[in-house]
Amino acid sequence: MRMVDLIEKKVNCEELSSGEIHFIVDGFVNGEIPDYQMSALLMAIVLNDMNEREAADLTLSMMRSGDTVDLSDLPGVKVDKHSSGGVGDTTTLVVAPLVAACGGTVAKMSGRGLAFSGGTIDKLESIPGVNIAQPIERFKEIVRKTGVCVIGQTGNLVPADKKMYALRDVTGTVQSVPLIAASIMSKKLAAGADAIVLDVKVGSGAFMKTVDDAKRLAELMVKMGKLLKREVVAVVTDMNQPLGLSVGNALEFREAVQLLAGKVPEGDALYEVCMLLGTQMLLLSNLAESDEQARSMLKRAVDSGAGLDKLRAMIHELGGDESLLTLAGMDSLCAVKRLVPVLAKEGGFVIGMQAELIGRAAQVLGAGRATKEDAIDPAVGLVMHKRVGDRIEQNEAICTLYVNDETNLDDAIQTMLEAVEIGKRPETITPMVYAVVR
Amino acid sequence: MRMVDLIEKKVNCEELSSGEIHFIVDGFVNGEIPDYQMSALLMAIVLNDMNEREAADLTLSMMRSGDTVDLSDLPGVKVDKHSSGGVGDTTTLVVAPLVAACGGTVAKMSGRGLAFSGGTIDKLESIPGVNIAQPIERFKEIVRKTGVCVIGQTGNLVPADKKMYALRDVTGTVQSVPLIAASIMSKKLAAGADAIVLDVKVGSGAFMKTVDDAKRLAELMVKMGKLLKREVVAVVTDMNQPLGLSVGNALEFREAVQLLAGKVPEGDALYEVCMLLGTQMLLLSNLAESDEQARSMLKRAVDSGAGLDKLRAMIHELGGDESLLTLAGMDSLCAVKRLVPVLAKEGGFVIGMQAELIGRAAQVLGAGRATKEDAIDPAVGLVMHKRVGDRIEQNEAICTLYVNDETNLDDAIQTMLEAVEIGKRPETITPMVYAVVR
Repeated sequence: MRMVDLIEKKVNCEELSSGEIHFIVDGFVNGEIPDYQMSALLMAIVLNDMNEREAADLTLSMMRSGDTVDLSDLPGVKVDKHSSGGVGDTTTLVVAPLVAACGGTVAKMSGRGLAFSGGTIDKLESIPGVNIAQPIERFKEIVRKTGVCVIGQTGNLVPADKKMYALRDVTGTVQSVPLIAASIMSKKLAAGADAIVLDVKVGSGAFMKTVDDAKRLAELMVKMGKLLKREVVAVVTDMNQPLGLSVGNALEFREAVQLLAGKVPEGDALYEVCMLLGTQMLLLSNLAESDEQARSMLKRAVDSGAGLDKLRAMIHELGGDESLLTLAGMDSLCAVKRLVPVLAKEGGFVIGMQAELIGRAAQVLGAGRATKEDAIDPAVGLVMHKRVGDRIEQNEAICTLYVNDETNLDDAIQTMLEAVEIGKRPETITPMVYAVVR
Repeated sequence: MRMVDLIEKKVNCEELSSGEIHFIVDGFVNGEIPDYQMSALLMAIVLNDMNEREAADLTLSMMRSGDTVDLSDLPGVKVDKHSSGGVGDTTTLVVAPLVAACGGTVAKMSGRGLAFSGGTIDKLESIPGVNIAQPIERFKEIVRKTGVCVIGQTGNLVPADKKMYALRDVTGTVQSVPLIAASIMSKKLAAGADAIVLDVKVGSGAFMKTVDDAKRLAELMVKMGKLLKREVVAVVTDMNQPLGLSVGNALEFREAVQLLAGKVPEGDALYEVCMLLGTQMLLLSNLAESDEQARSMLKRAVDSGAGLDKLRAMIHELGGDESLLTLAGMDSLCAVKRLVPVLAKEGGFVIGMQAELIGRAAQVLGAGRATKEDAIDPAVGLVMHKRVGDRIEQNEAICTLYVNDETNLDDAIQTMLEAVEIGKRPETITPMVYAVVR
């Protein structure tokens, strides 16, 4: 088998077989297939696409390129969730303990934030003492004990994805629905879950910019799940504004604690997306029979404080100071040198937001990384005071910046003013949920 | 400027500017742009195409990547011809001296054959003593003296093409009309001609397999010529069977001498394509005012022996033994150990040929190279006895193989039997000329 022949097949829109895809992934990971051939093939895939079978085979070959986690000795259905990445998306910290409080088993590996999007691991590390690097056996022990554990990626999971992503990043081959699907699914499969709920974000603060692309990604991953014998549900949700009001690591953790403490009302976007994701996770775990039943179970876990207790138990097991997981304790973690309100230049209605820019404003204040080596400041970021559709007066605060290092403060203020569009009349508000694909 | 952004422009079907194309070619040649980014861009070009302006800018940037030949101190219009490559295509050895005999100035650099297609340089070297590696000043001196000189590529002409072609060859990015056009045109421009006649071959023995693709390539190169201020005419001619009857280096040289000696009749495919190309060259050189006038000038140069005299003069200047350029002399150069006829297994009509296979049959006998390092035997190859449309009897010879080394003789015979398709009834014969594009 010659790589050049396989590239030409894809150029000619022919289907690659399982064996051919395995040859490609294997050869690329072990260095027999050079980067220049792989990037040519990746570009051919970006422009000529892959079908479901090819994407499923790519996923399997990528998964098999490294270690896989075996969770089969844990009781019940092991359910995972994954978000395609966004701004102010702190659903994992809410949903994982809530589902555990309802009897579910959540064993999840999360990533760090990069560029404008946040990552659960960085948020976990905003609690002093938390160690997100746990050996697999200890990870499983925590799940057995508390029903929920979220840690960083461990071991040599899916090296093919790491190597492919590094190449895609510099060769204009990131935007491909099957390549994105294979990257997500290979990691989820390697992490050992039986059932997976995928949250595909769409909009100005997501990697998917159109609803059509997001739906295609959701549908492809659900079909791949069927081919790969895993239970997969995908939801397509809005990311045209931050999901929660907080953007920043301790700030988002605080909002999660506030929600679990019953301080966030029904109808709130973060609350509703958490209910949606939690509902799907309970259904896949066979712990509820209907959306209504699942939602009321989740609501009870909020109202009783059982969800917050699960989060505290998990933080304790990870070595963190769980006594900080109170409203006052979280406020103390969000203490900064200066609180800087960003004031509206004119009155009217908030008619749109560029969520990516809002993520970048938090990033330049120190909440996120420009490169993987950058350090982050857990306390800094911003809290929004307005959502799209809200009325706003001239000189009313759009948001409050949480600032320790003022170096990029002006940049952050300008970025926020640019990010929030104010008009004379309210415009149609985009829905929170576009689709649930099973 | 970042290469990844330029790749993404091409992914999104946006036009690349002159400056951007120059940045790409320059960066690739000097090593700043790595192979893996270049191959991704090349694949995006293969699948999303380039417009005429982009192809012209690519040609110019490639041409400027190395040395260029200045022919401006030679008298008259310097006219070049180029064939996109085929089997039994010995037109250069006929047309170049004929045009010179009609008063034209032909200063041409040629290439070697690779795989199934032959190259003029290899054919020239079948004459003992010929040295195709001449310094530019000596090359021009020969042109000044005889009106015609064909040598090998000299100096550091278009290094961008060499580096790009090596990458395209292993990344499935050869088949792109604008990339092929830029490769051809950059070399022709660097070689200094004022006017260029391009022979785009189409069919089973050519790199272009469909008439549509060949016409597109022809039209693109003519339009690029206008943008680049050169006179360009392109013809699209048939390569569904060998153009001449001979395939092999001395054998093809012999057929050229036979034609120049008046031994090939009008109507013969090689004769007619030579007349077509010569006519276009004389028109571009302002030496004839009509096709009819040009053809009668060329015919006179055959009949008077003036063309053959020009070829002899050129061979003499290149250090070769021009006394061999007689019918008997050429026969002596084609002497081999064995002549092996390949006999038809059944009678009927020749209804089709796979010219590429015929080229390969000659190659395995030693007439061509599988890799650039292989040595060739000038005398070996084959002579066809039939053309498409001809009647053939069972056990009548399809062709005669000229054999010195019998190692691959069986392979060559089998390949020839596979290459020539015999049917019960004659089928429609493809035309010799599909288009003349000016």
